[in-house]
Amino acid sequence: MLIMRPKKVILGLFPILEWWKTYTLESAIGDVIAGVTIALTLIPQSMAYAALAGLAPQYGLYASFMAPFVYALMGTCPQINMGPSALLSLLTYTYTHGTNADFGIFLGFLAGITHLIAGVSGIGSLVEYISVPVVSGFTSAAALTIASSQVKGLLGLSYVAGTFVKSWRNFFGVVHKTRLMDSVLSIGCCTTLLTLKTIKEHIKVNTEGLNERQHRRAVIINRFLWFVGVSRNATVVTVATVTAFCVYKDIKTPFLLTGVITPGLPAVRPPPFQTSIGNTTYSAIDMMKHLGSGLIVVPAIGILANVAIVKAFAKGKKVNAKQEILALGVCNVISSFFQSMLVNGSFSRSAVSNASGVRTPGSGIYTGILVVFTLLFLTPYFYFIPRAALASVIVCAVLQMVDYEILRTLWKISRPDMITLLGTFFSCLVMGVEVGLICGVCIDAILLLYYNSRPYLDIKYNDTGSLPAHYSIHPIGGLHFAGAEYMRSKLTALLHPKVDDSPSHRDQEAASTANIPAPTPKSTKFLVVHCDELYRMDYTFLQDIQMLVIDWSRTGRVIWCNAKDSIKNQLKGVLTNPVFCTTKDLGSNMIVTTESQGSSEAEV
Amino acid sequence: MLIMRPKKVILGLFPILEWWKTYTLESAIGDVIAGVTIALTLIPQSMAYAALAGLAPQYGLYASFMAPFVYALMGTCPQINMGPSALLSLLTYTYTHGTNADFGIFLGFLAGITHLIAGVSGIGSLVEYISVPVVSGFTSAAALTIASSQVKGLLGLSYVAGTFVKSWRNFFGVVHKTRLMDSVLSIGCCTTLLTLKTIKEHIKVNTEGLNERQHRRAVIINRFLWFVGVSRNATVVTVATVTAFCVYKDIKTPFLLTGVITPGLPAVRPPPFQTSIGNTTYSAIDMMKHLGSGLIVVPAIGILANVAIVKAFAKGKKVNAKQEILALGVCNVISSFFQSMLVNGSFSRSAVSNASGVRTPGSGIYTGILVVFTLLFLTPYFYFIPRAALASVIVCAVLQMVDYEILRTLWKISRPDMITLLGTFFSCLVMGVEVGLICGVCIDAILLLYYNSRPYLDIKYNDTGSLPAHYSIHPIGGLHFAGAEYMRSKLTALLHPKVDDSPSHRDQEAASTANIPAPTPKSTKFLVVHCDELYRMDYTFLQDIQMLVIDWSRTGRVIWCNAKDSIKNQLKGVLTNPVFCTTKDLGSNMIVTTESQGSSEAEV
Repeated sequence: MLIMRPKKVILGLFPILEWWKTYTLESAIGDVIAGVTIALTLIPQSMAYAALAGLAPQYGLYASFMAPFVYALMGTCPQINMGPSALLSLLTYTYTHGTNADFGIFLGFLAGITHLIAGVSGIGSLVEYISVPVVSGFTSAAALTIASSQVKGLLGLSYVAGTFVKSWRNFFGVVHKTRLMDSVLSIGCCTTLLTLKTIKEHIKVNTEGLNERQHRRAVIINRFLWFVGVSRNATVVTVATVTAFCVYKDIKTPFLLTGVITPGLPAVRPPPFQTSIGNTTYSAIDMMKHLGSGLIVVPAIGILANVAIVKAFAKGKKVNAKQEILALGVCNVISSFFQSMLVNGSFSRSAVSNASGVRTPGSGIYTGILVVFTLLFLTPYFYFIPRAALASVIVCAVLQMVDYEILRTLWKISRPDMITLLGTFFSCLVMGVEVGLICGVCIDAILLLYYNSRPYLDIKYNDTGSLPAHYSIHPIGGLHFAGAEYMRSKLTALLHPKVDDSPSHRDQEAASTANIPAPTPKSTKFLVVHCDELYRMDYTFLQDIQMLVIDWSRTGRVIWCNAKDSIKNQLKGVLTNPVFCTTKDLGSNMIVTTESQGSSEAEV
Repeated sequence: MLIMRPKKVILGLFPILEWWKTYTLESAIGDVIAGVTIALTLIPQSMAYAALAGLAPQYGLYASFMAPFVYALMGTCPQINMGPSALLSLLTYTYTHGTNADFGIFLGFLAGITHLIAGVSGIGSLVEYISVPVVSGFTSAAALTIASSQVKGLLGLSYVAGTFVKSWRNFFGVVHKTRLMDSVLSIGCCTTLLTLKTIKEHIKVNTEGLNERQHRRAVIINRFLWFVGVSRNATVVTVATVTAFCVYKDIKTPFLLTGVITPGLPAVRPPPFQTSIGNTTYSAIDMMKHLGSGLIVVPAIGILANVAIVKAFAKGKKVNAKQEILALGVCNVISSFFQSMLVNGSFSRSAVSNASGVRTPGSGIYTGILVVFTLLFLTPYFYFIPRAALASVIVCAVLQMVDYEILRTLWKISRPDMITLLGTFFSCLVMGVEVGLICGVCIDAILLLYYNSRPYLDIKYNDTGSLPAHYSIHPIGGLHFAGAEYMRSKLTALLHPKVDDSPSHRDQEAASTANIPAPTPKSTKFLVVHCDELYRMDYTFLQDIQMLVIDWSRTGRVIWCNAKDSIKNQLKGVLTNPVFCTTKDLGSNMIVTTESQGSSEAEV
């Protein structure tokens, strides 16, 4: 493909070459407004998420400029803003806590490489087979886990966070050390953040029935309210920082502060393939061993989150998941040369971007420029950012990720999915989000196995018409191992309608749902399998068919009607002289003659 | 149920109460012959398998009398002989090597308890969802792993066995220490065993065209040949033991011998809930922690093996898997009070039993009596059994478990199953049978996911007849998350027949297989979903339907025909005003009027 149509491939890899042609001033204005608005959310968030990942705040800022630049070139979804995200920061903490920043950067690099492999090979699309209830349960549990890990920041405590359960257990061990001033500040910050969010979402000046001047003023007021709401993170952090600065006296301070942030842009160098902690030196292999399952789990969740965001904003347009995965990979790899932590699309910032009227992925360029500006000139002032303010930013951002509405919907329209949702949710809370996600996928697989264990057979008893009385079944699609036992038990039940030796519950259920009239005992029984829409069977199913046919051959016949050649071959592989026919043969006295022919092949 | 019909429950639990009524002298003779024949196989095998499990030989004998007694009371399958089995002995070694015999006995007890729980709760039936290729790949790999672990016994070497790969690696480390006499004995034993097996299977005096006397003589010769073949293990071990005894001089011996076996019956006492190794004391909890995943894997494989044997000999009769699992559990629990290692049905002994003309599970009583006799009177002579002879018994027994024929069958009739088979086989060899089995189940799940990701939709374009031109689909059964993306991409392709932005390979494939004529552009498009045989959708699928309908609503309509109430409810949960109709409505000008009505509900 690369050799065949290089131009098309390059255009596919860099959508900017396409949308750039139609980039107007209007688009640019939309993008600038969105880019600046995003930056106001991103800058405080990035530092907070770095803290969540157990890294110094500057790593969050390092992650916030190269990734948006790269995404502007390669991304397909205007709304996506690449940068630190709550979920991936939590996972970074899970896999790297107790180590140093090099591990976090290296994880980002490796995740990027994995994304690229997944994107090129197409393996990445497998994440689309994770069902919505699993994703929802996982996201809600992750939000609660993140919020729980931030309680220490809110109250000025110090303990090791972990899973939801572990965080709260550790919390109750040190709760008596709660710092008053930090708690007061947190309450203030959270209240302000939630109020501003409510204002943005619910309070609007009514613009109907006003004259032109009133109308214009109302529109301006509405825009102002919206902007205040959107920039609430920046506002709250700024106010808290100024407050902390004002009450700061002789190195004594009532709040826990962020402390010194390395000023300036990061040094450009390859990601660390070697690092030292104390006197121990870790090679790249050692680091990979330490990261362990994170090398698979982190990229998988990154892809899952990004594809989900792109889909949410696609509005019915075709999603190019492969290109998105590649873009995510390149963002992470290039960013890791700038000492960045893991980057990913963020759902909350994408929503802000969308509401700000973003037009193209180019808005990332303006966001990135603002972050560079911040790193160059503002870092000295970040010393005074209270940790409680950053924790408040995280808590208020993630709590909206908890989706309890879906419970009501599932109860109404699809209750079995509640098993998956709640199973995923609680295993995430108890065992950690990464293990919980795997549990969720297993629950999905088990449910699928269950559904597949009840294949559609459409058993009927036909005793009218010109044909002798016979049973018919009409299997559809593919028949696989999961359904083999079910099919056999149902069809054997037709032969032995009364099961004397203590039938199990399952058989009773099968018999009652089958709703088949009792066949005449002692007469020859026919089973016509209509194979018109049967496409394949697997070996396990064929084995059960073999046993079934042996069973039926004692008192009856199994006849295969309209089987395709592939199905005929499969059946010939396990049966001696299977009886094939077409619908036309059935119309003649085929069934009766088969009886006298024994098991000879009657293929027409 | 226990309260409702106690008599029926007891009859179900103890099938002996049923078959005892019709137990004739003829049945008894069949059972005695089978019981004695089995004992001749079982006694040498049980000691060999105990060695395979890393236990002293007497534990194999301890496992060989209580279990057949119990199975005679509770079993449903005459052919099954309970006792040590190669597979479970290998697993016992995997989970308990480096400990003492108490761990092996405790594992048997816990496995029995797990069997009982699995049997009563019905969870045990889940093993029936393991496909034939997985079982086959697992069994073949286990046989090779066991045979590899016995090479040290054959050659008189000493190294730590483990997975197939590890055994051979360790073997090549000590191969230069091979003992000549042990090797010679092994070659002799193996040659004899394989020759006798071949005689039993292939050499027969032709009995046709003979007079009565000749005929009788021929029958007697045939029976004698068969008996020599069946008792080959006992013969070979006896001859080897006598040889070892004769060449034994002044404690010097050319062969490695079994050594002292504790004589007499085992002490009857509860299974060990505490044990000491060196100075360390292990509580029951410590022992369970050490056994780890074995507490699940061992009983699961036990159930799997037993159910497979019962099915193989059921000959079309209904299999009472639940009762078999319960019987297996009781056998293990009671046996563990007699210091027994894990017991299970053995495929090879069941085949012998079948060929010996067994009539009822009662034959186990005769086998058990012979084992008791052996323990009481023969153990002193077992000192001289050469280890090479026991290793030869194992190797020749397990090599016939390797099933290479299935590869040819799968190649002919179901190639995708080869992925599962070979995947399971090689992961068992490399990572150990217990991990490999789990890999196999995962491969099964992934294949099932793949099949489910291509649900049967039956997309058609109808432009003849009285109705306006429309697409119709006819989904069947249940629609689940795995197929959601496929359905959406196929149906979205109908709206946008030409995909300009670099379609992925998968889409191209989908388009080419769909075989749908190009629709007229710019006209309103109708999609009629025939729901007659649609039973349920899960939430993920409904979400994709929601997006799909929004997509279609721009240029067309989606109409739900003949939906059941449950389906209607599900659709109403995600769609605003879905359009329902019946076949009759379709016959009228329903489709056209819907267009003018917009998205209002037109339910009749």
